[in-house]
Amino acid sequence: MQYFFSDHISNDIVVLSKEESRHCIGVLRYKAGDCIHVVDGKGKHVKCKISSTEKNIVKADIVDEFSNKNTKKHYIHIIIAPTKSNQRIEWFIEKAIEIGVDEISFIKCSNSERSRINIDRINKIAITAMKQSLKTTLPKINDLNRFNNTIQRVSEICKYIGYLGDSNPDFLGRLAPEKSKYCLLIGPEGDFTEDEFEYAVNQGFKSVSLGDSRLRTETAGIAGCLILNGVNYD
Amino acid sequence: MQYFFSDHISNDIVVLSKEESRHCIGVLRYKAGDCIHVVDGKGKHVKCKISSTEKNIVKADIVDEFSNKNTKKHYIHIIIAPTKSNQRIEWFIEKAIEIGVDEISFIKCSNSERSRINIDRINKIAITAMKQSLKTTLPKINDLNRFNNTIQRVSEICKYIGYLGDSNPDFLGRLAPEKSKYCLLIGPEGDFTEDEFEYAVNQGFKSVSLGDSRLRTETAGIAGCLILNGVNYD
Repeated sequence: MQYFFSDHISNDIVVLSKEESRHCIGVLRYKAGDCIHVVDGKGKHVKCKISSTEKNIVKADIVDEFSNKNTKKHYIHIIIAPTKSNQRIEWFIEKAIEIGVDEISFIKCSNSERSRINIDRINKIAITAMKQSLKTTLPKINDLNRFNNTIQRVSEICKYIGYLGDSNPDFLGRLAPEKSKYCLLIGPEGDFTEDEFEYAVNQGFKSVSLGDSRLRTETAGIAGCLILNGVNYD
Repeated sequence: MQYFFSDHISNDIVVLSKEESRHCIGVLRYKAGDCIHVVDGKGKHVKCKISSTEKNIVKADIVDEFSNKNTKKHYIHIIIAPTKSNQRIEWFIEKAIEIGVDEISFIKCSNSERSRINIDRINKIAITAMKQSLKTTLPKINDLNRFNNTIQRVSEICKYIGYLGDSNPDFLGRLAPEKSKYCLLIGPEGDFTEDEFEYAVNQGFKSVSLGDSRLRTETAGIAGCLILNGVNYD
């Protein structure tokens, strides 16, 4: 099964972007008359028949629409400091989407080794990961912002922070209740500063452990997604 | 903190291999008189002072030995079919060691897309991962073997298999008891065959789920390590 992405799914017709069209007809050799599956990243999933590949743009008629079976009763928002290595943060995006995440925000901390990210590239990686893991929904991805600005705006009910400086915090999997909205803060390679930790605690974030091992930033993000989804497994 | 690896730690003296010596004196520019930390992958961790770098081989005198604080009461053995992409299996090794794993076995299944692995390269990656995540113990890594041969020899008490063909199995995190020896079977990209699944069930393996998402082979392996370590978090 192969998914294509389009943000142009109307009632009857789908149009693929230049890039998706190239992938569809140039790489995978689909032709007019072939059926393809298209998702819009907002839960819509349609099967359609290619009607035209004129000017290398795929247009297709919808022949079937699949109901959105999303019955999830929880929401996972990971706030994470991007790693120095782009590869590691891109890997985090790919795996978080495969495992299941609803929102990702990037933050700039005192100990951050990276003050810029390429949000366009990250969005592309997210779309590829969504298609590959046969999901129909793309998480909301928020561009890099300052630590304080970001956490002031958090609206989730259950707010957690992974901080290595804290001794013996509770395990996230034991603390988190089922069916809730979670926000998990993951710090940079050099961890949060004490000031940042205190600020977060004052904003209602609880210190949690993600396990006995000291995890890298990107692994901690993935561990958070796995643990919170595990809590909600029916 | 930087760890070096050596399988030559005697009572008083440490000798680094050619490769570790090159990394130590060639790349990181350590000199005679400098202190380094060395682990042997079997739980031994010593601090020592470089006494000689003659012929580009590092010899060092032990000045301190750290007691092995391993109080772990569980054992995780992951049996996994190597992925088609070498990069993905190497990533699995790196992350599994970072999170915590005691034994990894590679199996050849009916749907395996890879019938050979480079065990020397995998061992090197494991040593690097151990050093990077500041662990003192290297997991036991078993070379590729046939599915049947491998699972017949499993001695762990709690035996689980992740199989997508089974409907609604229990979540591993709920099924696994604390403080036990676990073995988790993870299939190839095309999953286990029905025959393989039945064979494993007859050998005492219980079908488990690793969450609601359909995970890639390497992600499933990592999820298993995280879930089983989570069950045992004190």
